[in-house]
Amino acid sequence: MKYSSKTLEQAVEAMSALPSIGKKSALRLVLHLAENTTDKRRRLASAIMALETDLKTCEMCHNYSDSNVCDICRDKSRSARTVCVVESVKDVMAIEATQQYGGVYHVLGGVISPLDGISPDDLNIASLIVRLKEIDVNELIMAISPTIEGETTIYYLSKLIENLDVKITTIARGVSFGGELEYADELTLGRSIHGRVEYSHNVD
Amino acid sequence: MKYSSKTLEQAVEAMSALPSIGKKSALRLVLHLAENTTDKRRRLASAIMALETDLKTCEMCHNYSDSNVCDICRDKSRSARTVCVVESVKDVMAIEATQQYGGVYHVLGGVISPLDGISPDDLNIASLIVRLKEIDVNELIMAISPTIEGETTIYYLSKLIENLDVKITTIARGVSFGGELEYADELTLGRSIHGRVEYSHNVD
Repeated sequence: MKYSSKTLEQAVEAMSALPSIGKKSALRLVLHLAENTTDKRRRLASAIMALETDLKTCEMCHNYSDSNVCDICRDKSRSARTVCVVESVKDVMAIEATQQYGGVYHVLGGVISPLDGISPDDLNIASLIVRLKEIDVNELIMAISPTIEGETTIYYLSKLIENLDVKITTIARGVSFGGELEYADELTLGRSIHGRVEYSHNVD
Repeated sequence: MKYSSKTLEQAVEAMSALPSIGKKSALRLVLHLAENTTDKRRRLASAIMALETDLKTCEMCHNYSDSNVCDICRDKSRSARTVCVVESVKDVMAIEATQQYGGVYHVLGGVISPLDGISPDDLNIASLIVRLKEIDVNELIMAISPTIEGETTIYYLSKLIENLDVKITTIARGVSFGGELEYADELTLGRSIHGRVEYSHNVD
């Protein structure tokens, strides 16, 4: 594509550097920004720069925050003795959206993946250990995706803290609500049978 | 969705204000920008602001440009006596990409659409008339989408300049290359038969 302006071309280049935004979509977005009111452009540009200047990472759980310690970690009504270990900030949001969890989080920032060159040192593991030693944590919930890398990470963490008095749990795996048995993969279905629970009328 | 940070939320809001970017995609883009190198963020933010400070509109044809007159209008090897009237900057790019056109352009900035409140006064029509009177234009090619609004615009323009000595043409309508007859709509197919051309072995 030949652009009639260098300014336009640079904006398209910068926009298409974002994930899953191709050249054509980038051009559409840039033309939209070029045509629109000054306001929309400025708000976007300054919001992007604010990610650099204002966005902090919580010292405790490594979740994104506006202050040094995030709202969840500061919330006295939540139990600091239950820590849910997740891969990313997105997982915190997903779990918070369920409104089913009253503990705190610890964001690893990824999973151990030798193929992608991600070793335990690249993750927020040291700070988790410090946290477990400082605070009397009861339970560590591993809410990590059930992939090979995820399972490896759970195994690594469990070995690392096996001599600390912390109960380790993983989120339940099974057939999704509304999912049909015949379409569930064998591993999920197998585990779902293996991890069967007693039936109760009072389901919450 | 509850965000752990106002900064994050504002960035997602600003990003999802772009066309066809929903809240979930916006979050993915913002997290990507938050996690990535400073460079990528700054380049995007400054490219967006440059749309305001550096991007100009060509005085002659209203195409985007880095200078007051665009490269196409300044190009002495192109014929200024053939003017191709298009709806938007994207159409200029599409036609330029074919490398089949050696004239200049005139970007209307839309088509007449009473339903959307776009009247002839909102388009770059006055400047087109001035151009036609100043320069001895031979041919005006209407490369406007064959919609009701597009046809209305072509009709309006043709009436407006009927007493100037300018040949008006429209781009050929017909079945696309690789298109199958049975899937072509009736109007296109009808016009395609009506506007049939003599067969020649020397197709370029």
